[in-house]
Amino acid sequence: MRYELYYWPGIQGRGEFVRLALEEAAADYVDVARMPESDGMGVPALMRLLEDKATGRPPFAPPILKCGKQVIAQTANILQFLGPRLNLVPQAEATRVWAHQLQLTITDLVTEIHDSHHPIAGSLYYHEQKPEAQRRAADLRTVRLPKFLGYFEDVLGRNGGKNMVGKTLSYVDLSVFQVVDGLNYAFPKAMARLQPAWPQLLALHQRVMAHPRIAAYLASGRRLPFSTEGLFRYYPELDG
Amino acid sequence: MRYELYYWPGIQGRGEFVRLALEEAAADYVDVARMPESDGMGVPALMRLLEDKATGRPPFAPPILKCGKQVIAQTANILQFLGPRLNLVPQAEATRVWAHQLQLTITDLVTEIHDSHHPIAGSLYYHEQKPEAQRRAADLRTVRLPKFLGYFEDVLGRNGGKNMVGKTLSYVDLSVFQVVDGLNYAFPKAMARLQPAWPQLLALHQRVMAHPRIAAYLASGRRLPFSTEGLFRYYPELDG
Repeated sequence: MRYELYYWPGIQGRGEFVRLALEEAAADYVDVARMPESDGMGVPALMRLLEDKATGRPPFAPPILKCGKQVIAQTANILQFLGPRLNLVPQAEATRVWAHQLQLTITDLVTEIHDSHHPIAGSLYYHEQKPEAQRRAADLRTVRLPKFLGYFEDVLGRNGGKNMVGKTLSYVDLSVFQVVDGLNYAFPKAMARLQPAWPQLLALHQRVMAHPRIAAYLASGRRLPFSTEGLFRYYPELDG
Repeated sequence: MRYELYYWPGIQGRGEFVRLALEEAAADYVDVARMPESDGMGVPALMRLLEDKATGRPPFAPPILKCGKQVIAQTANILQFLGPRLNLVPQAEATRVWAHQLQLTITDLVTEIHDSHHPIAGSLYYHEQKPEAQRRAADLRTVRLPKFLGYFEDVLGRNGGKNMVGKTLSYVDLSVFQVVDGLNYAFPKAMARLQPAWPQLLALHQRVMAHPRIAAYLASGRRLPFSTEGLFRYYPELDG
């Protein structure tokens, strides 16, 4: 079964959480919007999927995963679907509910990180909401990041310190890696100051980065760079 | 099986999406934090659950559902868990994934509605972020509500106009009811202006409100009133 991932090309964004799972599992997938239009792919293929008048189940926004005839949107929903298929979540049903619960908490954090540079409207440019962004980013650095990352550190510790869920690598570990990686890019000063409070989380970030398939992916052209177009943005004035 | 719901007393908040499902199913449940401390419940019981040092799976925030030994947080995750048990979602696995996808899109909208009165920080009072709230609420009214509710109207139409998912009432219908109900309270002028664009959605809101168990619930003391302490808040200056 070849998976088709549909996401905006040029940025990691929310699509990256799905890419990391597909890459770690060495899944057969195609990143449709980054492939040539001449092959029937590219952004036009993404737009066709978003604007498909014939489907009864239109997705609201990317990322979208197509698996045969099934079309699935919402990052955490995609990961919940892929987890068992890619062997990236434990077997027990209650453990899967718990993994999804953690993923939804990561989703909440990701929204707050996005809104730190877009606190007023996604339809406005950053420079049109810069004073508001500075206020919101200050709260993110001093209140929200300590709360969320302190929580994930605590969860990791209660589970033995190696993995967020169960005894082997799961999609939750991959997502925690991505969040820490993105925050290190977007808030280097704040993260340097805060990091001593999260030793296990940072060790997990390092371990995931060194996983053979993830290491190969990060070194490849398939891994897009962080940028001020994406979810995690580096604006020095937001870093305190 | 008696369900225990743990949520802040005094507000509908995110807990209301769970309450509506439990009420429609006439489930055996107790709203723990609203029960007497003298019976071992009340807010102290909620705090004990949040601060339980012995659990390996601590919830980040309410609402939290306890079902036997299983403790589940994140509103959409709780509804996904309850759906099959309360007969509030169709059988087919792919349909359940789709229902959850819609619920997660509702979750996104709910966060945006919350942030329209708290665009800078949940830790600050509304009056400390009022100019920012006015800017964000204007974007919510003119850009985001039309986009989200237009999407739900479209989904409802593609499914025949009666239910969001499948052929019978699901937890998604209950959540759409709650969002429309809350928006009617918080943004009466904007909703009066926008409503003609969403005839099927408003008819669904009316039908759910008239469902015997929901009608009985809404007329009971168990339904808390909307207020400027909750998720949906009426501030005239945010209504345009």
